[in-house]
Amino acid sequence: MTLPRKHLFDIPKGVIYLDGNSLGALPKAAMARAQTTIAIEWGQELIRAWNTADWMGLPQKVGDKIAALIGAPAGSVAMGDTLSIKVYQALAAALKMRPDRRVILSDNGNFPTDLYMAQGLIDTIGKGYTLRTPNPEAVLDAITPDVAVVMLTQVDYRTGRLHDMDAITKAAHAAGAVMIWDLAHSAGALAVDILGSNAEFAVGCTYKYLNGGPGAPAFIYARPDVIDSVNPALAGWLGHDAPFDFELGYRPAMSTERLRVGTPPVVQLSLLDAALDAWDGVDMEALRTTSMALCDLFIAEVEARCPDLVLASPRDEDARGSQVSFAFEHGYAAMRAFIDRGLIGDFRAPDIMRFGFTPLYIDAGDVRAAAAIIADVINNRLWDDPQYLTKSRVT
Amino acid sequence: MTLPRKHLFDIPKGVIYLDGNSLGALPKAAMARAQTTIAIEWGQELIRAWNTADWMGLPQKVGDKIAALIGAPAGSVAMGDTLSIKVYQALAAALKMRPDRRVILSDNGNFPTDLYMAQGLIDTIGKGYTLRTPNPEAVLDAITPDVAVVMLTQVDYRTGRLHDMDAITKAAHAAGAVMIWDLAHSAGALAVDILGSNAEFAVGCTYKYLNGGPGAPAFIYARPDVIDSVNPALAGWLGHDAPFDFELGYRPAMSTERLRVGTPPVVQLSLLDAALDAWDGVDMEALRTTSMALCDLFIAEVEARCPDLVLASPRDEDARGSQVSFAFEHGYAAMRAFIDRGLIGDFRAPDIMRFGFTPLYIDAGDVRAAAAIIADVINNRLWDDPQYLTKSRVT
Repeated sequence: MTLPRKHLFDIPKGVIYLDGNSLGALPKAAMARAQTTIAIEWGQELIRAWNTADWMGLPQKVGDKIAALIGAPAGSVAMGDTLSIKVYQALAAALKMRPDRRVILSDNGNFPTDLYMAQGLIDTIGKGYTLRTPNPEAVLDAITPDVAVVMLTQVDYRTGRLHDMDAITKAAHAAGAVMIWDLAHSAGALAVDILGSNAEFAVGCTYKYLNGGPGAPAFIYARPDVIDSVNPALAGWLGHDAPFDFELGYRPAMSTERLRVGTPPVVQLSLLDAALDAWDGVDMEALRTTSMALCDLFIAEVEARCPDLVLASPRDEDARGSQVSFAFEHGYAAMRAFIDRGLIGDFRAPDIMRFGFTPLYIDAGDVRAAAAIIADVINNRLWDDPQYLTKSRVT
Repeated sequence: MTLPRKHLFDIPKGVIYLDGNSLGALPKAAMARAQTTIAIEWGQELIRAWNTADWMGLPQKVGDKIAALIGAPAGSVAMGDTLSIKVYQALAAALKMRPDRRVILSDNGNFPTDLYMAQGLIDTIGKGYTLRTPNPEAVLDAITPDVAVVMLTQVDYRTGRLHDMDAITKAAHAAGAVMIWDLAHSAGALAVDILGSNAEFAVGCTYKYLNGGPGAPAFIYARPDVIDSVNPALAGWLGHDAPFDFELGYRPAMSTERLRVGTPPVVQLSLLDAALDAWDGVDMEALRTTSMALCDLFIAEVEARCPDLVLASPRDEDARGSQVSFAFEHGYAAMRAFIDRGLIGDFRAPDIMRFGFTPLYIDAGDVRAAAAIIADVINNRLWDDPQYLTKSRVT
C-alpha cells in the first residue's frame, strides 16, 4: 500500500510521525542543498549568485514544480511570502474584479488567519465590505448574488472535512462571484485539479505535505486568463515588469510573476526546491488512493480498540482529506502521552487529536503501531498524569 | 582603522567584496547554525521544535538584537516577510492614524519598491489618496499640512546621500504627519537612534549590512507609545493575541508582535540570528567613524588615479551613508571588468557604479587594492571588451 519514497526522508528512529500535515518531515536532499546554497552560492558567489546560481529564476522554477502537483499549467504559480500574505493578495485582487459587490463569503471552519486577513483587508478598504462565515455545510446555500468572492479552505484543518471544490466553484460562478481556494491541506495530500475547477485563485503553504521546512514560502495560483487583469495590491518591485530598470511607477509583470512581491527567501526556496524532488513521478491519483487506505485503516484500528474516542472526521473517505481526527475530552494530555511514546500528532482546541497521513513516508506498519500506542494510552489512562495535564506548550 | 571582525566571515580568496550593501557576506557561524536548525531541530525534533528549539520565540529574539543596533528598545521590533510588506504595514497603519489627510510624501530617490507598495495601497483603498515624490533635496519644503505620512529611505540606494533624520522627522511632526523611515541602507551601516528620532515607524531589510543571507526576513519598528493604537492591515494569525486559541475574530497582540503576520521563516531567521552575533559588542559610533574613514580613503584613492570618474555620492561624509558611487558612462561594462579582476561592486542604471563599505569585514587594505583595480580598468580601457559590453545580467 505504501509509495516507495520513505527512504528519501530522515525520520528519527523510534518516531511515528503523523504530523506531516503541520510540518512535513525532512527530505534527505534538503541538508545537502542548504550547504550548497549557503556555503557555495552565498559564501563564494556572493551577489553574483543571483545570476550564476539563478536565484532570480528560482521562484518560477519552484512554482512550476508546485503547479504540476495541483493541476495548474506551468507559469501560473508564483512563490513567496506566507500563506496569510497570499490570501490577502488573492482577496484584494478578487474584490477589484467585482467592484459593485461588498461581501466576502467564507466559513467558520476556515483556518483563522484566512478570516483575519479578510478582516484586515476590509478594515483597510472600508466602504461597507463584510465577511460572512456560515457553517461549512451551509456554504453552498450562502452563495447569494451579493457575494463578491467565495474564499474557502478545501480541507478543514481540524477535522479533515473536504469541501466539494467543483460544486462550490460552479455555484460561486453561477452567482457571479470570484472563487479562491486555500490548498494548505490539499497540495501534496489530494489529487487537485485547480485548472479544471475553473477557480480564479488558489493559495497554499509548502511546509506541510510538500515538506519545504519550517517557514517555507507560500504559493499563489491565478487562472491564466485572469492574471492580466489583476492589479496587485501588494505591488512589490519583483512583481514589476522590469525590476532592474528601477522606474518610479509600478508596471506589473505580464505574467503570474506580478504576484511576487519582495526579494525571495532564497535559502528556504532552495530547501523547498530540493524537497519537491521527492515528488518526481508520483501519480497523485495513486497517492490519494494510498492516503484513503491509510486513513481508513487508522480509523478501523483505533475504533476497534478505543471505544472512548469519537471520530471527528468524516467517515466517508471521499469527504475527507489526508488526516483523521478524534475528539477526546482529555485530548491535550493524551497527545502528550502519545508523543512521549514516540507517536507524534497534534492537538487543536477544544478536544481534537489530529493525525496526518503523508503517503510519501507513512505506511500501514506505522498506522498499526500508532493505533497500538493510542490504545495503550487511552485504555490504560496513561494520559492521567500530572506531567501531561499542565498546559504549557504553544503547539 | 578596521574593526577586528573580519575573521568572523568567509570571504572568498582573491575577492574584494564591496557589495555588502546589496548582499552581506557569509558569517562563519551561519553554516553551523543551518545544520543545527535543519538536521537537528527540523529533522529530529520535527513539530516539537516550535517548543523545544523555541522557534516560536525566535522572531522576538532576533527583533531584540536588531533593536539594539538601531537605537530601539527591546520588544519594539517585529520580524518577518520582506521589506516591501513591512513598508505596506507601516504605511497602512500610518494612514489610519491620520484619517482626514490624503497625501503620502516620499521622494524620487527612494527605492522603487517603497513607492510601488504605496501605489498598491492607494489603489486598494481608493478614496483620493495620492503619492508625492519631489526631489530628495525638496522634501523638507514639501511637508505641507495636507501630508498624512512622510515615508523616506534614509540612505539613497544609488548615491548614498543621507537624509537628515532628525530635521525631517521634526518637520513631519510639526506639520501633523506620521514619519516612517526605511533603514535598508542604514541598519548596520550607521549609528541610528530611531527612538531618539521620535519617528513612529521604521522598516528595514537584514540581508545587506546585517548579513542575514539572501532573502533574509525584514523588520519593522513601531514607537512604543503608538503600537497599541495600530490596527494591522495585514492581520495574520501570528499577530493575534492568542494564535493557538484559533478564534474566528482578530484581536491584535498587545505588543509589537501584532506586526507579525504568518508563520516565520525559521531557517532564514536562524541564519540571521547567528549572523547578528557578529555585532556583539560593536560600538555603532566607532563603526560609523570607521565607515567614514574607509569611504573617504576610497574617494581619495580613486579620484587621484581616475579623472574620468565623477563622484556621484556626497563629498561631505556627514551627508553620506556607508557607500560610495561613481558615475561613468561605461559603468556597466567597467563593473563587469572589475568583477573579473576580483573586485565586486554593482551597477545601477543609468551610469552608477556602487561600492559598499561594511566595516565588519572591509579594511583599508581592501580599499587600496580596490582602487588599484579600478584605476587599471579605467585608465587602460579594459572595460572596452565585447565580453563586458553585452547586457545579459539581471543584477
